[in-house]
Amino acid sequence: MSAILTLNAGSSSIKFGLFDADTLEEEAGGQVEKIGGKTELDLEIPGQPKLERRIPAANHQEAVTAILAAIAPYLDGREVVGMGHRVVHGGPDHAAPLVLDEAAIAALTRLEPLAPLHQPHNLSAVRAARRAFPETLQVACFDTAFHRGHPWVNDTYGLPRRFYDMGVRRYGFHGLSYAFIAGKLAEDWPALHAGRVVVAHLGNGASLCAMEGGRSIASTMGFSALSGLCMGTRPGQMDPGVLLWMLDDQGMSSVEITRVLYKESGLKGLSGLTNDMRALLASDVPEAAQAVDYFTDRVAQEVAAMAATMGGIDALVFTGGIGENAAPIRARVLDQLAFLGFALDASANASGGTRISSGLPALVLPTNEELVIARAVRDALRGRARA
Amino acid sequence: MSAILTLNAGSSSIKFGLFDADTLEEEAGGQVEKIGGKTELDLEIPGQPKLERRIPAANHQEAVTAILAAIAPYLDGREVVGMGHRVVHGGPDHAAPLVLDEAAIAALTRLEPLAPLHQPHNLSAVRAARRAFPETLQVACFDTAFHRGHPWVNDTYGLPRRFYDMGVRRYGFHGLSYAFIAGKLAEDWPALHAGRVVVAHLGNGASLCAMEGGRSIASTMGFSALSGLCMGTRPGQMDPGVLLWMLDDQGMSSVEITRVLYKESGLKGLSGLTNDMRALLASDVPEAAQAVDYFTDRVAQEVAAMAATMGGIDALVFTGGIGENAAPIRARVLDQLAFLGFALDASANASGGTRISSGLPALVLPTNEELVIARAVRDALRGRARA
Repeated sequence: MSAILTLNAGSSSIKFGLFDADTLEEEAGGQVEKIGGKTELDLEIPGQPKLERRIPAANHQEAVTAILAAIAPYLDGREVVGMGHRVVHGGPDHAAPLVLDEAAIAALTRLEPLAPLHQPHNLSAVRAARRAFPETLQVACFDTAFHRGHPWVNDTYGLPRRFYDMGVRRYGFHGLSYAFIAGKLAEDWPALHAGRVVVAHLGNGASLCAMEGGRSIASTMGFSALSGLCMGTRPGQMDPGVLLWMLDDQGMSSVEITRVLYKESGLKGLSGLTNDMRALLASDVPEAAQAVDYFTDRVAQEVAAMAATMGGIDALVFTGGIGENAAPIRARVLDQLAFLGFALDASANASGGTRISSGLPALVLPTNEELVIARAVRDALRGRARA
Repeated sequence: MSAILTLNAGSSSIKFGLFDADTLEEEAGGQVEKIGGKTELDLEIPGQPKLERRIPAANHQEAVTAILAAIAPYLDGREVVGMGHRVVHGGPDHAAPLVLDEAAIAALTRLEPLAPLHQPHNLSAVRAARRAFPETLQVACFDTAFHRGHPWVNDTYGLPRRFYDMGVRRYGFHGLSYAFIAGKLAEDWPALHAGRVVVAHLGNGASLCAMEGGRSIASTMGFSALSGLCMGTRPGQMDPGVLLWMLDDQGMSSVEITRVLYKESGLKGLSGLTNDMRALLASDVPEAAQAVDYFTDRVAQEVAAMAATMGGIDALVFTGGIGENAAPIRARVLDQLAFLGFALDASANASGGTRISSGLPALVLPTNEELVIARAVRDALRGRARA
């Protein structure tokens, strides 16, 4: 009996999951938040009350050490035979998970300019894990990998071709979530899986994926995690002329612009209140309603655009924190897209049903990125065993 | 009997038209090109061969003087009672044409940071015209005016609200063309005019307008003329993260980025050949085909998005140089949008028909921006006469 540990590191947080290496049953999960500040560790064991504790963690290495200490009691002497890492960027070359050695880590480090706010933290967690478990198989699962088969029109921008060759491509993100949904569709909705599906991963980060036959054709996110849909603190679709005006007319630095676009925009910036969709939906402040209006209209516009790039749409899937839980958002998007053939089933939508429409199918499917990482680790372990 | 002169000034060119002030019959038209270089003036009189001549014109003032000299023989002693100017930017306040006095010109000059590559040239032509005809009524017609009624979700970006208040809005452009098409629909296709129409102005610049009841609801162009569709030398939809990477990782200046985005991108950049759609369609170079693929896919995606923001679509109108003349482009867009209800009529499309689809109507309507300007001048003259 052995275990697989998954790590999903953000700029100041790490989510983790402990899985049985054979059954992939999740035995423990949780997260460390506010690394470098008043760090907290949450641990959830199925069937037990959630544990929350303050821990000292000045950096990602100390956070990983704390995670390992927290889960140690649940290992029952079993070995952690593989660790899986969510890594935001695999660059143009990686369409599958990657077993990590020094050379691979060095190569991924060279991709940091493509995701300067995320990639360094991901790799910091990888290095901490390798120091703690030098003999354990380490696997990187890329948010970009699922999208690497985009046709050219959905892989390029309208720039001089040298930029494509330099790596300016529509990578797309949230690939682990989309891979999970594709697998779920293959299992439970095989006819839809074979067709043209738009998957809406709506969370604090948000994007759409256009899928044909379970493969990604296009994403609303491209080179960075900024474009496409309006997000918690990111603007989504943006005119490049706005950035030139910020630079030339307002004298803003790229550091200031980066902060505005990643941290202060989206639902938070439009509402002037919060990036929390639950709070916005509960608010009677006009700006909160306007932020929600903007969010839903952008989702509707981009779903239709994704349909157009496939020449049609056979189903829409909602997932992610907002997609799974915000029934009013789903209802508004489907009403706006009635012209495509969706007819909201208000009762199913409000009561947590999986299929929430008549006419063209709209589904709500909870995602599970950690399980996708754990599967990749198990596959890598089996590959190594066969080799 | 008197005449109206229209001027449409670009960075190195001025288009002009001479109209009968009562009937608005166009009596002469043409353009000055390559101002500041080997300047050429073309003049077309209905029923006569086109005249082309080299002229000296170091700046817009000299070009306006040359235009006035060229049309003088056709005035037959009539007075130019009004001049109309296409001005790219009217800012947030102007939803209609504006009679120009010193104060108005000063106010429009303050908008130059919103359109730094176009507004100064427009106003330079205005000043030259006022010097040449100090007593003549001068009217500005704004490319943004037709779009000033956008609902909030199509007027803002997902930025902190202070940017909206600072003028960062989805102004939209090509408004004179859309105003002409709206008028044409009202005359000849009143049922469509009352419905939800997407108008595709496809030229070297290209955008879409979503119209409900003849009023603009949304545009693919927003703050600048860079976003939305792929254009001759402009990229259209772009991830803001690409600009941050250009700044931070590539060390490009805003001047270099501006040049790439306005002059070197789009069809020209993707093909590596030319921004001329006719040449690209005739080429057998793979990169030419890829550029055309990108162009048509972006049009299809954005038409669907415009439909979504209106909750549906009742008709699609093609106009502009590409929209009016490139039958293969129209065919590909309609085929990709068959899922919305369009069924290409290949024969009508190839033979210059107005309606080129069965099912949902797709129309080809030639635009006439100069006539919209001339009408605005006539309206202003009549208003002044009544006052």
